[in-house]
Amino acid sequence: MVSQTNPISIRKGWQCLMNWHSEFIANIVNVMLQLKKLGKEDPRRAIHSFKVAFAITLVSSFYYFNSLYHSFGSSAMWAVMTVIVVSEFSVGATLGKGLNRGLATFLAGVLGLGSYYMVHSISRGDHIIEPILLGIIIFLATAGVTYIRFLPQMKARYDYGLLVFILTFCLVSVSSFRDKEILKTAQDRVTTILIGGLISVMVCIFVCPVWAGGDLHNLVSKNIQKLGNFLEGFGDEYFGTLEDGESNKLSMQEYKSVLNSKQVEDNLINFARWEPCHGRFRFQYPWQQYQKIGNLSRQCAYRIDTLNGFLNNFSKTPKEMRSKIQEPCMKMSIETGKALKQLSVSLHKMIPPSAANTHIAASKIAATNLRSMIKTNLLEDYTNLFEVVPIVTVASLLLDVVSSTEKLAESIQELSNLAKFKNKESKVAAQDQKSPHHEEVPQCVITINHLSTNLTHNIGTS
Amino acid sequence: MVSQTNPISIRKGWQCLMNWHSEFIANIVNVMLQLKKLGKEDPRRAIHSFKVAFAITLVSSFYYFNSLYHSFGSSAMWAVMTVIVVSEFSVGATLGKGLNRGLATFLAGVLGLGSYYMVHSISRGDHIIEPILLGIIIFLATAGVTYIRFLPQMKARYDYGLLVFILTFCLVSVSSFRDKEILKTAQDRVTTILIGGLISVMVCIFVCPVWAGGDLHNLVSKNIQKLGNFLEGFGDEYFGTLEDGESNKLSMQEYKSVLNSKQVEDNLINFARWEPCHGRFRFQYPWQQYQKIGNLSRQCAYRIDTLNGFLNNFSKTPKEMRSKIQEPCMKMSIETGKALKQLSVSLHKMIPPSAANTHIAASKIAATNLRSMIKTNLLEDYTNLFEVVPIVTVASLLLDVVSSTEKLAESIQELSNLAKFKNKESKVAAQDQKSPHHEEVPQCVITINHLSTNLTHNIGTS
Repeated sequence: MVSQTNPISIRKGWQCLMNWHSEFIANIVNVMLQLKKLGKEDPRRAIHSFKVAFAITLVSSFYYFNSLYHSFGSSAMWAVMTVIVVSEFSVGATLGKGLNRGLATFLAGVLGLGSYYMVHSISRGDHIIEPILLGIIIFLATAGVTYIRFLPQMKARYDYGLLVFILTFCLVSVSSFRDKEILKTAQDRVTTILIGGLISVMVCIFVCPVWAGGDLHNLVSKNIQKLGNFLEGFGDEYFGTLEDGESNKLSMQEYKSVLNSKQVEDNLINFARWEPCHGRFRFQYPWQQYQKIGNLSRQCAYRIDTLNGFLNNFSKTPKEMRSKIQEPCMKMSIETGKALKQLSVSLHKMIPPSAANTHIAASKIAATNLRSMIKTNLLEDYTNLFEVVPIVTVASLLLDVVSSTEKLAESIQELSNLAKFKNKESKVAAQDQKSPHHEEVPQCVITINHLSTNLTHNIGTS
Repeated sequence: MVSQTNPISIRKGWQCLMNWHSEFIANIVNVMLQLKKLGKEDPRRAIHSFKVAFAITLVSSFYYFNSLYHSFGSSAMWAVMTVIVVSEFSVGATLGKGLNRGLATFLAGVLGLGSYYMVHSISRGDHIIEPILLGIIIFLATAGVTYIRFLPQMKARYDYGLLVFILTFCLVSVSSFRDKEILKTAQDRVTTILIGGLISVMVCIFVCPVWAGGDLHNLVSKNIQKLGNFLEGFGDEYFGTLEDGESNKLSMQEYKSVLNSKQVEDNLINFARWEPCHGRFRFQYPWQQYQKIGNLSRQCAYRIDTLNGFLNNFSKTPKEMRSKIQEPCMKMSIETGKALKQLSVSLHKMIPPSAANTHIAASKIAATNLRSMIKTNLLEDYTNLFEVVPIVTVASLLLDVVSSTEKLAESIQELSNLAKFKNKESKVAAQDQKSPHHEEVPQCVITINHLSTNLTHNIGTS
């Protein structure tokens, strides 16, 4: 039975097609807007894309110019490949990958050739024994190196090198079985990989470099600033002292990105350790100390997250009680917030964090006041402890945050000693106290958490 | 001036050499012990190494057998390369990489050839215009795709594919300039990559497969169990009701690994989405719901971290006060702990989490008791609120944890509805309540946090 063409079904089909079409257009527009936003958030992303394209175009000229092509032949392909695989966003990541690739290729090439000659001399060219022996060697080497890749210390810094080692070792020892000009091939491969690696490292360092160390430094200081923002705004939000319509909630919620910042920080520390001295960061800069600072910031952030949960619990506490405890609590919160922001400024400017001490001292005085107030007269009129519980908890958590901040200040002082921060700018810092360095942190930092996936997925390929 | 050989300096030199030697030996022994520990923690690591070695040995047989070699020639190298680069620890990661690589190679190959023929027909074989046009196309394509890699949704699932796309597009359109048999080369490359990808996917799936989905499932349920362990032990630790020498501290501190579990979970979710249905996980299993459960677990873990900070603050509270509040607090903590452990068991066994409801109800009753106790008679004898602060804070935090647990239970219920968990095992689950599923979670899970770097650094190479 053949169905007749029904005008209604045609109209329906047309409608479907139009819907699909408009949805498709909407999706494309959406992606375009996202791409535009990515570039606005951090223009270094667009620059990075052009840098990679430039390096590839440069290296592919090997193929176009006769003289260059004739010296390497089709091995020139390895140079193109190396540039594509090695080019990462930051200098540290690129250098790490480049060095891993270069060293691993060299070492595996030598060992692969060695194993081939050994097998060849044992088997005396026997076409049955030779592949069996080669197979056994490849099996053992691959299994061993794959297993070593699970070691955490190898994983963190040399994972890519170990992968390239397996790759080159297999390629050299397998192809040695057929390729009669194996030495020439190996030599060409090492040379072209070195050329590719050099080009991508050069472009990465000399064209608008992105330093993982600088990003790490900015990320850690920005995170501390976010914690400070929360605490500075917390008193007003909790005690409801803001005018109608006014609210700090937006900037206060920024602290949430600190909670899950560990992975990004660890990756940046790994990359930063590959980088040479640059800008304000000297040779063998104590990058590991940032791990300690980051951990303490997160510890503080966990307390703040608990505090955040109490922001809506306020209504139950009676007004008189509130007003009694309000002053020291607000003082404590604001001073701790200022201390954190001052710590962030000092870290960012690389000056000793002494300017934060006055705020820490003030917050400790407020804490002592609060304690003695709680000790003496707070409960004179209240026998109903239940109404007091939320505010007492908040006060207690704030006391906890004050001691976390002290620990954080100590770890930044340690960094200051290790990295020999100098004090000449301390006057400027004191002036900046009122206007935090929000404007000074380059806009890239704003999006550094967004970038987390970029940095963790440092994927290479062939 | 030539210095004479001094017996003392020789002895010193010898001592140095011996020190260096013994240090070297100690280092090697240390690494060996670590390797042994890695294998003990999770034997799947050793199995994975042998699987990779087996796949590589299998694919390298292409080279040894004349007939196979003659049909592909040196392109057989690409198969070896693909196996090495694509073989990842879990099935999901391997499938994701394999599909990305296969599709990207095919697409880029076609587009690369297309762009070459277009350029060739425009330039009509002119040896100056042709490389310039090719260079412009490569520059634009590379810059565009590199920029698209920054899009978070592309980064998460298709980053490797985009990289391979750039690679293949460049290789094909560049080498087309020199290679006269470009079609044959492209065809060989696609075929060998498909063969390599197939071999590694087959070995990964059919030889002791490691499912990212299963790992994710175990990780999330194990994390909830860790939170439960803390809360079950907290009452005894805080109120000091344990015998001398007894302590839960070791198992209680396990919750710390939950704080930074986000990255590992997100990666496992991404991998799990590539996996076909397997075991108890059907097609289109709601993996995204694990993200919600994980986030709620972490929120609970932040509160627990704050509670943990109060474990040493106990001494200040007077004994009588302590004994008054002790019962409901302990009840609340233990019941919440049991509820979390029951939720973990239900999740692990994939049965509806109804068995946890009794514990949640009991913890809520304890919470109501605590509230009314605080409301009425707690402060009769105490005018010094200061002594009461820590314990009131702890009680308040416990109340907060109870409501977090409720939310967590709801999200697991949602998963249960989405994934259609069945209730036939509920009796078994009720029995298991006293003996949590510690023994049942395969030992691999114990080390899953250790593995985090493995999963985040899914590095490939050439």
